[in-house]
Amino acid sequence: MSDLVSLVGAGPGDPELLTVKAVRALAEADLVLYDALVAPEILALAGTAQRFSVGKRCGRPAIRQESIHALLIRAARRGKRVVRLKGGDPFVFGRGGEEALALAAAGISFEVVPGLTNAVVAPALAGIPVTHRGLASAFVVVSGHDEAAFRPLLEGLAPASATVVVLMGLASRARLAELLIGGGWSSATPAAIVLGAGTAQAHTWQGTLAGLASAELAQAAGLPGTLVIGAVVTLADVISRRVAKGRATDAFEEPIHARG
Amino acid sequence: MSDLVSLVGAGPGDPELLTVKAVRALAEADLVLYDALVAPEILALAGTAQRFSVGKRCGRPAIRQESIHALLIRAARRGKRVVRLKGGDPFVFGRGGEEALALAAAGISFEVVPGLTNAVVAPALAGIPVTHRGLASAFVVVSGHDEAAFRPLLEGLAPASATVVVLMGLASRARLAELLIGGGWSSATPAAIVLGAGTAQAHTWQGTLAGLASAELAQAAGLPGTLVIGAVVTLADVISRRVAKGRATDAFEEPIHARG
Repeated sequence: MSDLVSLVGAGPGDPELLTVKAVRALAEADLVLYDALVAPEILALAGTAQRFSVGKRCGRPAIRQESIHALLIRAARRGKRVVRLKGGDPFVFGRGGEEALALAAAGISFEVVPGLTNAVVAPALAGIPVTHRGLASAFVVVSGHDEAAFRPLLEGLAPASATVVVLMGLASRARLAELLIGGGWSSATPAAIVLGAGTAQAHTWQGTLAGLASAELAQAAGLPGTLVIGAVVTLADVISRRVAKGRATDAFEEPIHARG
Repeated sequence: MSDLVSLVGAGPGDPELLTVKAVRALAEADLVLYDALVAPEILALAGTAQRFSVGKRCGRPAIRQESIHALLIRAARRGKRVVRLKGGDPFVFGRGGEEALALAAAGISFEVVPGLTNAVVAPALAGIPVTHRGLASAFVVVSGHDEAAFRPLLEGLAPASATVVVLMGLASRARLAELLIGGGWSSATPAAIVLGAGTAQAHTWQGTLAGLASAELAQAAGLPGTLVIGAVVTLADVISRRVAKGRATDAFEEPIHARG
């Protein structure tokens, strides 16, 4: 018997960066419940399945998490093969755990299909490895969506002890930089903002921790942003020749090509 | 013109968890240089390509990193389509950054194809989300291979401020637990050891931070181990019903099935 509900990670947005298992789950789905940030090219892989957006939209309240659970459970009980499609990975700030628990409590069979998390892949697509010998042997991932989520970890984080990656961190970048600098991090620590990783609008701002707050992000509107803080940011210059310093650069259409 | 060298992440070992792009890179390769931990089922996707292992083997010294660079460069200069295949993700303790820099310095075109990192996917396959509302809103990833790599970050890490994931941490688990407990972490913090994630031999030990050091891992021989420390570990009981407390459990053949 196949599982009725698949909690599927869609990765950064490029359909080529889906897993083989995710592609098959989409092809076999009767119903796809997707987040607003999932790319149309990925939804197209669902063939004739019914599609329903459950993500936040501008000016409209998001569907409550409990309503998503109810939709998943109802569809599964009707025998539908359901894919719950999330940007990145379901278990990295994706609320996949909450949905898994709700399904388990309702006695619904499910599987989890991991996806490439933006915590690693957004930096990678901008030419930044989160670890690199001699520069970083650890990394830290936080959500910037509210201060209670990142302050306990960041306020005492030993300076330069890890690469810091912040998902959903655009709005709180001034506060994040202030916290780290207040904790002893050098204001000259290299920093980057990777915008729209894995999409045709992808571009990267590069500067310093002190400069994060005042970074001009003219083309950022509507794009998800990932902050990367640490010495590894400097590698982008060589690993992706298309990233320029201290300003937002043009879109690069393909990930990480260093052409001699 | 296509890129000559692809630095490809193979993910946790299950061929279904490769990206579409990785599968194509393998199918088009003339030569595959792979690490010892890459599964035979994944190598089989390379068709008629030449295969060459550059990973560590028991009793024999590993090939030096510089020699790997030389092999990549030489093959690319002969016009071969080369895949450098690594377990997990090339940029998470995979030395992909070093290889990218060496290729760039030699003027060789390359691309990076990210893979699912064991830092997120090994816990996920054992039913453990690295983040979960109310339990963890951040996670930290370190390598356990030597103390200089993890001590600067872990010795001051605020208790319970993040899920801690340790790759290659089996040998140093006693020291890791000692460091965290010395820094104020509760010795009763839930902890897990995920062994051989994504392989047929996969199984999980579950217990506490204090119990990590003395965990009996009879079936661990030769399997890569990922440590997970934090309250999210308790979710495995529900998300993967096949994980039992305080002892190593039987292998589970498929990831995360909760069958009501």
